[in-house]
Amino acid sequence: MKADIINPFIESIINVLSTMANTTAQQGKIFLKKDNLAKGDVTGIIGMAGEKAKGSLAISFTEPVILHVASNMLGEKYTTLEPIVIDMVSEIVNMVLGSVKNTLAEKGYIFDMSIPSTISGHNHNVSHKTIGPVIIVPFMTSIGDFFIEVCFESWD
Amino acid sequence: MKADIINPFIESIINVLSTMANTTAQQGKIFLKKDNLAKGDVTGIIGMAGEKAKGSLAISFTEPVILHVASNMLGEKYTTLEPIVIDMVSEIVNMVLGSVKNTLAEKGYIFDMSIPSTISGHNHNVSHKTIGPVIIVPFMTSIGDFFIEVCFESWD
Repeated sequence: MKADIINPFIESIINVLSTMANTTAQQGKIFLKKDNLAKGDVTGIIGMAGEKAKGSLAISFTEPVILHVASNMLGEKYTTLEPIVIDMVSEIVNMVLGSVKNTLAEKGYIFDMSIPSTISGHNHNVSHKTIGPVIIVPFMTSIGDFFIEVCFESWD
Repeated sequence: MKADIINPFIESIINVLSTMANTTAQQGKIFLKKDNLAKGDVTGIIGMAGEKAKGSLAISFTEPVILHVASNMLGEKYTTLEPIVIDMVSEIVNMVLGSVKNTLAEKGYIFDMSIPSTISGHNHNVSHKTIGPVIIVPFMTSIGDFFIEVCFESWD
Protein backbone atom coordinates (compact mmCIF):
# COMPACT_ATOMS: atom_id res chain seq x y z
CA MET A 1 0.00 0.00 0.00
CA LYS A 2 1.47 3.31 -1.03
CA ALA A 3 1.63 6.42 1.14
CA ASP A 4 -0.82 8.17 -1.16
CA ILE A 5 -3.41 5.56 -0.15
CA ILE A 6 -3.01 5.87 3.62
CA ASN A 7 -2.64 9.66 3.76
CA PRO A 8 -6.26 10.44 2.81
CA PHE A 9 -7.43 8.26 5.72
CA ILE A 10 -5.22 10.14 8.16
CA GLU A 11 -6.26 13.55 6.89
CA SER A 12 -9.92 12.56 6.89
CA ILE A 13 -10.11 11.29 10.49
CA ILE A 14 -8.22 14.31 11.81
CA ASN A 15 -10.53 16.59 9.87
CA VAL A 16 -13.76 14.85 10.92
CA LEU A 17 -12.85 14.86 14.64
CA SER A 18 -11.73 18.46 14.47
CA THR A 19 -14.76 19.87 12.68
CA MET A 20 -17.49 17.59 14.07
CA ALA A 21 -16.24 16.94 17.61
CA ASN A 22 -13.90 19.85 18.32
CA THR A 23 -11.25 17.25 19.14
CA THR A 24 -7.63 17.55 18.10
CA ALA A 25 -6.05 14.23 17.15
CA GLN A 26 -2.33 13.91 16.65
CA GLN A 27 -1.03 11.17 14.41
CA GLY A 28 1.39 8.66 15.90
CA LYS A 29 3.83 6.36 14.16
CA ILE A 30 2.32 4.17 11.45
CA PHE A 31 3.05 0.46 11.73
CA LEU A 32 2.16 -2.81 10.07
CA LYS A 33 -0.20 -4.99 12.04
CA LYS A 34 1.65 -8.14 13.07
CA ASP A 35 -0.84 -9.63 15.47
CA ASN A 36 -4.28 -8.85 16.81
CA LEU A 37 -3.18 -7.24 20.07
CA ALA A 38 -4.55 -3.80 19.26
CA LYS A 39 -7.76 -3.62 21.23
CA GLY A 40 -10.60 -1.17 21.54
CA ASP A 41 -13.88 -0.89 23.42
CA VAL A 42 -15.89 0.16 20.40
CA THR A 43 -14.93 -0.28 16.75
CA GLY A 44 -16.58 0.90 13.58
CA ILE A 45 -15.93 -1.10 10.42
CA ILE A 46 -16.86 -0.21 6.86
CA GLY A 47 -16.06 -1.97 3.62
CA MET A 48 -14.80 -0.60 0.33
CA ALA A 49 -15.52 -2.54 -2.81
CA GLY A 50 -15.01 -1.84 -6.47
CA GLU A 51 -14.14 -3.62 -9.66
CA LYS A 52 -10.43 -2.95 -9.22
CA ALA A 53 -10.02 -2.29 -5.51
CA LYS A 54 -11.33 -3.58 -2.22
CA GLY A 55 -10.54 -2.98 1.39
CA SER A 56 -11.82 -2.15 4.82
CA LEU A 57 -11.46 0.61 7.36
CA ALA A 58 -11.76 0.05 11.10
CA ILE A 59 -11.64 2.79 13.72
CA SER A 60 -11.23 1.58 17.30
CA PHE A 61 -11.90 3.89 20.24
CA THR A 62 -11.35 3.35 23.90
CA GLU A 63 -14.40 4.19 25.96
CA PRO A 64 -13.18 7.57 27.35
CA VAL A 65 -12.28 8.85 23.89
CA ILE A 66 -15.56 7.98 22.17
CA LEU A 67 -17.56 9.32 25.14
CA HIS A 68 -15.74 12.62 24.77
CA VAL A 69 -16.15 12.68 21.00
CA ALA A 70 -19.84 11.75 21.09
CA SER A 71 -20.54 14.30 23.85
CA ASN A 72 -18.94 17.02 21.74
CA MET A 73 -20.71 15.95 18.57
CA LEU A 74 -24.13 15.77 20.19
CA GLY A 75 -23.79 18.63 22.67
CA GLU A 76 -24.76 16.48 25.63
CA LYS A 77 -22.69 14.64 28.22
CA TYR A 78 -22.54 10.86 27.77
CA THR A 79 -20.96 8.60 30.36
CA THR A 80 -21.82 5.12 29.09
CA LEU A 81 -21.62 3.34 25.73
CA GLU A 82 -25.34 3.73 25.04
CA PRO A 83 -26.82 3.20 21.54
CA ILE A 84 -26.57 6.83 20.48
CA VAL A 85 -22.84 6.81 21.24
CA ILE A 86 -22.36 3.56 19.29
CA ASP A 87 -24.29 5.19 16.46
CA MET A 88 -21.78 8.03 16.35
CA VAL A 89 -19.00 5.52 15.63
CA SER A 90 -20.88 4.41 12.52
CA GLU A 91 -21.36 8.03 11.51
CA ILE A 92 -17.65 8.68 11.95
CA VAL A 93 -16.46 5.73 9.82
CA ASN A 94 -19.03 6.66 7.20
CA MET A 95 -17.87 10.28 7.07
CA VAL A 96 -14.19 9.38 7.08
CA LEU A 97 -14.54 6.87 4.26
CA GLY A 98 -16.84 9.17 2.29
CA SER A 99 -14.11 11.78 2.16
CA VAL A 100 -11.42 9.17 1.39
CA LYS A 101 -13.57 7.79 -1.42
CA ASN A 102 -13.58 11.14 -3.20
CA THR A 103 -9.85 11.64 -2.79
CA LEU A 104 -8.95 8.13 -3.99
CA ALA A 105 -11.32 8.45 -6.97
CA GLU A 106 -9.15 11.34 -8.16
CA LYS A 107 -6.19 8.93 -8.01
CA GLY A 108 -8.05 6.36 -10.10
CA TYR A 109 -9.21 4.05 -7.29
CA ILE A 110 -12.96 3.79 -7.65
CA PHE A 111 -14.99 1.97 -5.05
CA ASP A 112 -18.38 1.99 -3.35
CA MET A 113 -18.99 1.89 0.39
CA SER A 114 -20.80 -0.82 2.33
CA ILE A 115 -23.13 -0.30 5.30
CA PRO A 116 -21.01 0.42 8.40
CA SER A 117 -21.12 -1.94 11.36
CA THR A 118 -20.12 -1.24 14.93
CA ILE A 119 -18.77 -3.67 17.48
CA SER A 120 -18.82 -2.96 21.19
CA GLY A 121 -17.45 -5.08 24.00
CA HIS A 122 -14.47 -4.46 26.22
CA ASN A 123 -11.12 -5.50 24.81
CA HIS A 124 -12.31 -7.05 21.59
CA ASN A 125 -9.87 -7.89 18.82
CA VAL A 126 -10.21 -7.03 15.16
CA SER A 127 -8.45 -8.90 12.38
CA HIS A 128 -8.67 -8.65 8.61
CA LYS A 129 -8.40 -11.31 5.96
CA THR A 130 -6.21 -9.72 3.36
CA ILE A 131 -3.33 -10.76 1.15
CA GLY A 132 -1.83 -7.29 1.59
CA PRO A 133 -0.59 -5.52 4.72
CA VAL A 134 -2.84 -4.09 7.43
CA ILE A 135 -1.72 -0.57 8.27
CA ILE A 136 -2.34 0.74 11.78
CA VAL A 137 -2.23 4.43 12.53
CA PRO A 138 -2.42 5.37 16.22
CA PHE A 139 -3.72 8.79 17.22
CA MET A 140 -3.37 10.69 20.47
CA THR A 141 -5.93 13.11 21.89
CA SER A 142 -5.99 14.94 25.22
CA ILE A 143 -8.39 12.28 26.53
CA GLY A 144 -6.67 9.17 25.30
CA ASP A 145 -5.67 7.22 22.24
CA PHE A 146 -7.47 5.58 19.39
CA PHE A 147 -6.35 3.93 16.18
CA ILE A 148 -7.42 3.20 12.67
CA GLU A 149 -6.72 0.05 10.67
CA VAL A 150 -6.70 0.16 6.90
CA CYS A 151 -6.38 -2.65 4.43
CA PHE A 152 -6.60 -2.00 0.74
CA GLU A 153 -6.00 -4.20 -2.29
CA SER A 154 -6.05 -2.95 -5.84
CA TRP A 155 -5.37 -4.66 -9.11
CA ASP A 156 -5.23 -3.10 -12.56
CA MET B 1 -35.89 -6.48 2.17
CA LYS B 2 -37.66 -9.14 0.17
CA ALA B 3 -37.54 -12.87 0.86
CA ASP B 4 -35.66 -13.39 -2.36
CA ILE B 5 -32.81 -11.34 -0.88
CA ILE B 6 -32.48 -13.18 2.42
CA ASN B 7 -32.98 -16.72 1.05
CA PRO B 8 -29.66 -16.89 -0.81
CA PHE B 9 -27.86 -16.04 2.46
CA ILE B 10 -29.64 -18.85 4.29
CA GLU B 11 -29.01 -21.38 1.55
CA SER B 12 -25.39 -20.35 1.26
CA ILE B 13 -24.44 -20.65 4.94
CA ILE B 14 -26.19 -24.03 5.24
CA ASN B 15 -24.38 -25.22 2.12
CA VAL B 16 -20.95 -23.93 3.18
CA LEU B 17 -21.13 -25.51 6.65
CA SER B 18 -22.43 -28.77 5.24
CA THR B 19 -19.86 -29.17 2.48
CA MET B 20 -16.82 -27.58 4.13
CA ALA B 21 -17.35 -28.51 7.79
CA ASN B 22 -19.63 -31.53 7.67
CA THR B 23 -21.95 -29.60 9.98
CA THR B 24 -25.72 -29.59 9.61
CA ALA B 25 -27.31 -26.24 10.45
CA GLN B 26 -31.05 -25.89 10.83
CA GLN B 27 -32.61 -22.51 10.22
CA GLY B 28 -34.60 -20.96 13.06
CA LYS B 29 -37.23 -18.24 12.90
CA ILE B 30 -36.17 -15.09 11.09
CA PHE B 31 -36.68 -11.86 13.03
CA LEU B 32 -35.98 -8.17 12.72
CA LYS B 33 -33.20 -6.89 14.92
CA LYS B 34 -34.69 -4.54 17.51
CA ASP B 35 -31.71 -4.08 19.79
CA ASN B 36 -28.13 -5.21 20.01
CA LEU B 37 -28.65 -8.06 22.43
CA ALA B 38 -27.62 -10.80 20.05
CA LYS B 39 -24.08 -11.65 21.10
CA GLY B 40 -21.36 -13.90 19.83
CA ASP B 41 -17.79 -14.77 20.76
CA VAL B 42 -16.43 -14.39 17.26
CA THR B 43 -18.05 -12.53 14.37
CA GLY B 44 -17.09 -12.23 10.74
CA ILE B 45 -18.22 -9.12 8.88
CA ILE B 46 -18.04 -8.42 5.18
CA GLY B 47 -19.37 -5.50 3.19
CA MET B 48 -21.29 -5.45 -0.08
CA ALA B 49 -21.08 -2.36 -2.21
CA GLY B 50 -22.33 -1.50 -5.65
CA GLU B 51 -23.73 1.39 -7.60
CA LYS B 52 -27.31 0.41 -6.79
CA ALA B 53 -27.01 -1.73 -3.70
CA LYS B 54 -25.05 -1.84 -0.47
CA GLY B 55 -25.16 -3.91 2.66
CA SER B 56 -23.29 -6.02 5.13
CA LEU B 57 -23.27 -9.59 6.32
CA ALA B 58 -22.26 -10.62 9.82
CA ILE B 59 -21.99 -14.20 11.05
CA SER B 60 -21.67 -14.60 14.82
CA PHE B 61 -20.54 -17.85 16.33
CA THR B 62 -20.37 -18.93 19.93
CA GLU B 63 -17.02 -20.42 20.85
CA PRO B 64 -18.10 -24.11 20.92
CA VAL B 65 -19.69 -23.88 17.48
CA ILE B 66 -16.76 -22.26 15.69
CA LEU B 67 -14.29 -24.61 17.40
CA HIS B 68 -16.29 -27.54 16.07
CA VAL B 69 -16.62 -26.01 12.59
CA ALA B 70 -12.93 -25.08 12.34
CA SER B 71 -11.84 -28.50 13.62
CA ASN B 72 -13.92 -30.18 10.92
CA MET B 73 -12.74 -27.80 8.20
CA LEU B 74 -9.07 -28.20 9.08
CA GLY B 75 -9.06 -31.83 10.15
CA GLU B 76 -7.45 -31.05 13.49
CA LYS B 77 -8.91 -30.53 16.95
CA TYR B 78 -8.99 -26.91 18.14
CA THR B 79 -9.93 -25.99 21.68
CA THR B 80 -9.19 -22.26 21.83
CA LEU B 81 -9.92 -19.27 19.61
CA GLU B 82 -6.43 -19.18 18.12
CA PRO B 83 -5.61 -17.21 14.94
CA ILE B 84 -6.23 -20.09 12.54
CA VAL B 85 -9.73 -20.52 13.95
CA ILE B 86 -10.44 -16.78 13.64
CA ASP B 87 -9.15 -17.00 10.09
CA MET B 88 -11.74 -19.64 9.30
CA VAL B 89 -14.51 -17.18 10.21
CA SER B 90 -13.20 -14.80 7.54
CA GLU B 91 -13.09 -17.66 5.06
CA ILE B 92 -16.67 -18.57 5.88
CA VAL B 93 -18.12 -15.05 5.44
CA ASN B 94 -16.13 -14.73 2.23
CA MET B 95 -17.45 -18.02 0.84
CA VAL B 96 -21.02 -17.35 1.93
CA LEU B 97 -21.10 -13.88 0.38
CA GLY B 98 -19.33 -15.07 -2.76
CA SER B 99 -22.13 -17.50 -3.43
CA VAL B 100 -24.80 -14.91 -2.54
CA LYS B 101 -23.18 -12.41 -4.87
CA ASN B 102 -23.64 -14.71 -7.84
CA THR B 103 -27.24 -15.50 -6.97
CA LEU B 104 -28.20 -11.85 -6.43
CA ALA B 105 -26.46 -10.81 -9.65
CA GLU B 106 -28.94 -13.03 -11.50
CA LYS B 107 -31.71 -11.03 -9.80
CA GLY B 108 -30.18 -7.76 -10.95
CA TYR B 109 -28.41 -6.77 -7.71
CA ILE B 110 -24.80 -6.22 -8.66
CA PHE B 111 -22.23 -5.57 -5.96
CA ASP B 112 -18.58 -6.14 -5.11
CA MET B 113 -17.26 -7.55 -1.85
CA SER B 114 -15.00 -5.82 0.65
CA ILE B 115 -12.18 -7.43 2.64
CA PRO B 116 -13.69 -9.45 5.50
CA SER B 117 -12.94 -8.52 9.10
CA THR B 118 -13.27 -10.68 12.17
CA ILE B 119 -14.00 -9.59 15.70
CA SER B 120 -13.27 -11.76 18.70
CA GLY B 121 -13.98 -11.06 22.34
CA HIS B 122 -16.51 -12.65 24.62
CA ASN B 123 -20.02 -11.26 24.44
CA HIS B 124 -19.41 -8.48 21.98
CA ASN B 125 -22.30 -6.67 20.33
CA VAL B 126 -22.69 -5.93 16.65
CA SER B 127 -24.88 -3.16 15.29
CA HIS B 128 -25.40 -1.81 11.80
CA LYS B 129 -26.06 1.69 10.58
CA THR B 130 -28.76 1.23 8.01
CA ILE B 131 -31.97 2.97 7.03
CA GLY B 132 -33.48 -0.44 6.27
CA PRO B 133 -34.17 -3.38 8.57
CA VAL B 134 -31.52 -5.69 9.95
CA ILE B 135 -32.60 -9.30 9.47
CA ILE B 136 -31.39 -11.91 11.94
CA VAL B 137 -31.52 -15.58 11.10
CA PRO B 138 -30.67 -17.95 13.96
CA PHE B 139 -29.35 -21.42 13.20
CA MET B 140 -29.14 -24.51 15.36
CA THR B 141 -26.48 -27.19 15.15
CA SER B 142 -25.87 -30.23 17.34
CA ILE B 143 -23.14 -28.26 19.15
CA GLY B 144 -24.95 -24.98 19.68
CA ASP B 145 -26.41 -21.99 17.94
CA PHE B 146 -25.11 -19.23 15.73
CA PHE B 147 -26.75 -16.47 13.78
CA ILE B 148 -26.34 -14.31 10.74
CA GLU B 149 -27.26 -10.64 10.40
CA VAL B 150 -28.00 -9.18 7.00
CA CYS B 151 -28.68 -5.61 6.02
CA PHE B 152 -29.19 -4.69 2.42
CA GLU B 153 -30.27 -1.46 0.76
CA SER B 154 -30.95 -1.13 -2.94
CA TRP B 155 -32.20 1.72 -5.04
CA ASP B 156 -33.05 1.72 -8.72
